[in-house]
Amino acid sequence: MIAHSLPDPVFGPAQNLHGATYVVDAEFQRPELNQHKIVLDIGLATDLLKEVLAPLAYQNLDELPQFKGELTTTEYLARYIHDQLVVALNNSFQGSLKVTLGESHVAWASYQGPVS
Amino acid sequence: MIAHSLPDPVFGPAQNLHGATYVVDAEFQRPELNQHKIVLDIGLATDLLKEVLAPLAYQNLDELPQFKGELTTTEYLARYIHDQLVVALNNSFQGSLKVTLGESHVAWASYQGPVS
Amino acid sequence: MIAHSLPDPVFGPAQNLHGATYVVDAEFQRPELNQHKIVLDIGLATDLLKEVLAPLAYQNLDELPQFKGELTTTEYLARYIHDQLVVALNNSFQGSLKVTLGESHVAWASYQGPVS
Amino acid sequence: MIAHSLPDPVFGPAQNLHGATYVVDAEFQRPELNQHKIVLDIGLATDLLKEVLAPLAYQNLDELPQFKGELTTTEYLARYIHDQLVVALNNSFQGSLKVTLGESHVAWASYQGPVS
Amino acid sequence: MIAHSLPDPVFGPAQNLHGATYVVDAEFQRPELNQHKIVLDIGLATDLLKEVLAPLAYQNLDELPQFKGELTTTEYLARYIHDQLVVALNNSFQGSLKVTLGESHVAWASYQGPVS
Amino acid sequence: MIAHSLPDPVFGPAQNLHGATYVVDAEFQRPELNQHKIVLDIGLATDLLKEVLAPLAYQNLDELPQFKGELTTTEYLARYIHDQLVVALNNSFQGSLKVTLGESHVAWASYQGPVS
Repeated sequence: MIAHSLPDPVFGPAQNLHGATYVVDAEFQRPELNQHKIVLDIGLATDLLKEVLAPLAYQNLDELPQFKGELTTTEYLARYIHDQLVVALNNSFQGSLKVTLGESHVAWASYQGPVS
Repeated sequence: MIAHSLPDPVFGPAQNLHGATYVVDAEFQRPELNQHKIVLDIGLATDLLKEVLAPLAYQNLDELPQFKGELTTTEYLARYIHDQLVVALNNSFQGSLKVTLGESHVAWASYQGPVS
Repeated sequence: MIAHSLPDPVFGPAQNLHGATYVVDAEFQRPELNQHKIVLDIGLATDLLKEVLAPLAYQNLDELPQFKGELTTTEYLARYIHDQLVVALNNSFQGSLKVTLGESHVAWASYQGPVS
Repeated sequence: MIAHSLPDPVFGPAQNLHGATYVVDAEFQRPELNQHKIVLDIGLATDLLKEVLAPLAYQNLDELPQFKGELTTTEYLARYIHDQLVVALNNSFQGSLKVTLGESHVAWASYQGPVS
Repeated sequence: MIAHSLPDPVFGPAQNLHGATYVVDAEFQRPELNQHKIVLDIGLATDLLKEVLAPLAYQNLDELPQFKGELTTTEYLARYIHDQLVVALNNSFQGSLKVTLGESHVAWASYQGPVS
Repeated sequence: MIAHSLPDPVFGPAQNLHGATYVVDAEFQRPELNQHKIVLDIGLATDLLKEVLAPLAYQNLDELPQFKGELTTTEYLARYIHDQLVVALNNSFQGSLKVTLGESHVAWASYQGPVS
C-alpha cells in the first residue's frame, strides 16, 4: 500500500500524489525439480519477498532515495522488485523469475527475466 | 487509487502517507422487483457510483476539505461513499444499499444501511 | 450459456437478442446443523441444481414456454431458479435459500427466500 | 454479452442459438519499456479494446456479416479480436499481444501473436 | 491444510482419510465504528485468527483430542473456529462474527453468531 | 481433496500427515486451430481430466502404490497429472499442455511440456 505521483503529462490525473495497493506474485521456473521435488522452498521464497517489500510498504515512494528521479510505474516497480529478489536469492536458485504486480482486478504488470 | 495517512498511533506504519487501490461494489436490495423486473437500472447505478467516486480518484485524501480532521479508514470511506450514493440516487430507489471497499484479496470493509 | 432479449426500452442495446454466461451459486442456511453435522448433502444440492438448470442450458429463453411474456432479467432468473430449486428439494430441507447469478466479475443478482 | 450458434455436430447442444458473457483481457509484452517507463498507455489500450468490442456487444453474431460462414468459437473470437486490435493500434505499439476471452471461471481461450 | 476422515456412510468416498486446504475468512460486524473509526484492529484480528488456526495447520484432525468422536465437516469446523475466536477476542469486541471456510472455488461453509 | 505427508526435513510441519484441496487446470496450446475452429473438444478434455483425477480424489496418497517412495509435492503432482493426461489423450492432440495445481489463492505449481 504505497503513495506516489507520476510527474509526466502522459499520466493525466495520476500526476497527482495518489496511491495503490499492489498484490505481488513471484513465479519461479526451472527445467527440472531439485532433489526435494520442488522448484524452490516456498517458505524461503515468501520470506525473501517479504524482505524485499518491507522497505516499500506504507511508504510515499516519492520520498525514497532509491526512486529519486524515476517514474515509479507499475511496470518499473515489477522490474525493481524482480531485481531486488534476484539479489536476495543470493545464488540459491537458478532459472527464471516472473514478478507480477496486481493493481486491481483489471490491471497488472509483470517483468520476467533469468536468475543465474 | 488514493493516497492518505491515518494519524492515530493505533495504525502503526499506516500513520505514514501511503496509498490504496479500492475496488468499490454497490449492492442494492429491495423486497420486490420494479415493473421492469429489475432491482435498479444497472447503467444508472454504475453512472452514479462513478459520479460519487470521481472527486476521490487519484487524490491525496489528506488534502480534500470533506475529510479534514477525519480518519479516512476503509470503514469510514465505505460509509462516506454509501451516504453520497444515497444523495445521488435522489429518491429514485427505495430499499437497502451495501457498499463494499475491497483493499486487496484479503481485506475489505462494508457499510449497509437503508435508502428511503 | 443462454440467449435472450429484453424487449423493454429501458434495456437499450439489450433489447437485441444477445447472450450471457451465468455462474449459479446456491447458498443454504439453517439455524442448526443436521445429525450428520452438515447443512445439506452437497452432492444432493449439486445434483438438484444441475437438474433445475438443465432445461435452460444452451437455450434461447425467448423460445421457452415458461418465459413467454416475461422479461428474463438476471433478477427474474435468480428468483425463477430459486423457486424451481425449492420444488426440487421436495421437503428434504427447511431453512433459507439464496440463489446468485453471476453475469461477469462486476455484475450479479441474488434472490433469497425461505424453504419450508 | 453475445448470442450465437455453433452449427457443427461436434458442438452438441451448443448447435442451438445460445449466448455467452466474455470477459476480454489484452496483455501487451515488449522487451524494454518506453520512455515513460510503461509498456503502453493503459488508457489508450482500454479505449482501443472498447472500440474493437463495441460492434459485438449485445449482438447475435450469427447475423453479423463479418462472421458469415464462420464457426464463432471462443478460440476464433480470441484471434478475431487480437487481429482487430492490431489494426486499431495503427503502429503505435511493437511487441506481442495476447487476447484472452474468459467464458466462465473454468473456461477460457487465448490467442497470442506479434504486433509489428 | 488438514487431513481428516468423515466416518458416516452419507459422505461416500469422503469416509476415507483425505485432506483439504481451507481458506478461512473472519468478518466482524458492529452497528457503529469505534473511536478509531474502525470495526476492529485488523492486525489484532489477523493475529488472533492465526493463533486459533495454528494448532490445526498441517494436522490429521482424526488424531486431535478436541475432535474425538466428532464429524469434522466444513460446517462443524466453521463453528469450532468461530467459537475459538470468540474466546480469543476476550471481550475486546462486541458485535457479530461470521467465519467462512472456503474449500475450493465452488464450495464453502459459514457460521455466524454474536460476540458479547 | 487428498491426504499425504512429505517425509523430508525441508518440509517442516508438512512432514505430518495433512491434506490439500487442489484445483486442477489444464491449458492446451497449438499453433493453429483444428477444422472445427477449436484447440480441442473441451468436453473431451474435461472427461479425460476427470478420468485422470478419479483415482486420486479423496485418497491418502501415502497409501497409493504409484507414489511409493515419492515426495508428492505440488510440483511432482503437476507433472504426474500432465503425464497421465498425455497418455489419456492417446494421440488425439498434438501441441503443448500445461497443468496447474492451485493449492490456495496464494500458492500454485505448474508443469508444461509437449504432447506429441
